Amino acid sequence: MSAAATPAAILRFEHGAERSSEKVDLLAAEAPLEIRVEGTSVAVVMRTPGNDRELAAGFALTEGIVSGHNEIFDITSCLETAPAAKGNVIDIGLTQPTSFDTSRLTRHVFTSSSCGVCSKASIALVMKDHPAIDDPSRTTRNLVMKLPAILRERQEAFAQTGGLHACALFNADGTLVDVKEDVGRHNALDKVIGAALLAKQLPLAGHIVLLSGRASFEMMQKAYAARIPIVAAISAPSSLAVEFARESGQTLIGFLRGESMNVYAGAERLE
Amino acid sequence: MSAAATPAAILRFEHGAERSSEKVDLLAAEAPLEIRVEGTSVAVVMRTPGNDRELAAGFALTEGIVSGHNEIFDITSCLETAPAAKGNVIDIGLTQPTSFDTSRLTRHVFTSSSCGVCSKASIALVMKDHPAIDDPSRTTRNLVMKLPAILRERQEAFAQTGGLHACALFNADGTLVDVKEDVGRHNALDKVIGAALLAKQLPLAGHIVLLSGRASFEMMQKAYAARIPIVAAISAPSSLAVEFARESGQTLIGFLRGESMNVYAGAERLE
Repeated sequence: MSAAATPAAILRFEHGAERSSEKVDLLAAEAPLEIRVEGTSVAVVMRTPGNDRELAAGFALTEGIVSGHNEIFDITSCLETAPAAKGNVIDIGLTQPTSFDTSRLTRHVFTSSSCGVCSKASIALVMKDHPAIDDPSRTTRNLVMKLPAILRERQEAFAQTGGLHACALFNADGTLVDVKEDVGRHNALDKVIGAALLAKQLPLAGHIVLLSGRASFEMMQKAYAARIPIVAAISAPSSLAVEFARESGQTLIGFLRGESMNVYAGAERLE
Repeated sequence: MSAAATPAAILRFEHGAERSSEKVDLLAAEAPLEIRVEGTSVAVVMRTPGNDRELAAGFALTEGIVSGHNEIFDITSCLETAPAAKGNVIDIGLTQPTSFDTSRLTRHVFTSSSCGVCSKASIALVMKDHPAIDDPSRTTRNLVMKLPAILRERQEAFAQTGGLHACALFNADGTLVDVKEDVGRHNALDKVIGAALLAKQLPLAGHIVLLSGRASFEMMQKAYAARIPIVAAISAPSSLAVEFARESGQTLIGFLRGESMNVYAGAERLE
């Protein structure tokens, strides 16, 4: 049993509610994590415990708090300063603490956009500080179609609980680099990106990220922050995810199942 | 085609990437909505356009901004004050504007909890202002097992796009009261709750809410704010959702599929 699974006694009914049994089920673990930057609380996320440093690092990058690993001095669990929180508080120390400005937080920025809240403005805002992805790397459709099977094999906690999202990072040649699971899809992606950031592997040029669920605007935005050129999802993308990919220069694949897939943007990367 | 679906030209590959075709696909519509309270921006949510008033009303209730319909004076789309936003800004006017205090926002409260961030504290915080649900209503397992088929029939935009969450509200006798779809699961539930709030149907004693996906802590918290005693999910609940239900007095059903289901809490309501 992995730490991502929590046992609980449940009642199961089968065959038209006639047959009932008491059993112990494994639940996807969910607990709050308070993320602080230089001691200031910036968010509380509901996450599956484990890889909290990676989650905090990924969150810091994809929310625009840092732009590279060299801006992070350390990431520490606040066991001493907040003992009652039992490891559910984590603090990001910055190389240049004075540079931290809460107004840089992406979600805050959205609300103060003077050009109006609309799809176009949301995309423009994300792309304001970083150019579109002009990554010349190529992969093949046959390679992409083999990725879901690799992800499925590594979804350990999902297999136990049925309740976790997963996110897998691959090299352009289809080699699995990392896989992370979480009750929240955003967290799973932040953990993968954060692990790569801490390992000084960013930007993730030539990489492919595979999402176990759907692709939304926020998922595309996170992949963009890590400069991932190809995003593939087992399930559907949203309209704004597609709009974003077409503006950002990313390749977006959806409904990647069995022997088929839909390509919504950047088909030129798939040979 | 419903307004929740947006057409897009895509490339589809089938049968081992050999057969490709250009086609028009329907995407789940996603666009930002800025929610204001008395002119002050409190959140930007990525939602499927449609039922924005209901979404805003539900958000206001489940985030603790209002505690009943009589506290809402009006909800207006800011077409005149923010024309560039094209209907993506909505403002909630309060009956007593001076009572509005941004520190009451649930998510903000989490971060300033002095008792430490942990599962127990998160649950205690939500239940602080409202007693546990002591709803004597009963239903039957056979009735509950019939609900997913009713929801599926009404998931119009999901059938077109494969990319939307849905949330359905039922009476204790299994009559469908409402169903709402959205790219975000939280929004779908807020829309259902907001519609009931505006129709002065709260508290939703004796009701059952069915979620097309998973049940997380935040979903339980929203149902709790509307005083819904029974929450059923097609997919898995998280550990914190189960913990919450056991404290809050709610019935929580998961993996409600075909002829079977798991009961995680409050089995006494199922005869």
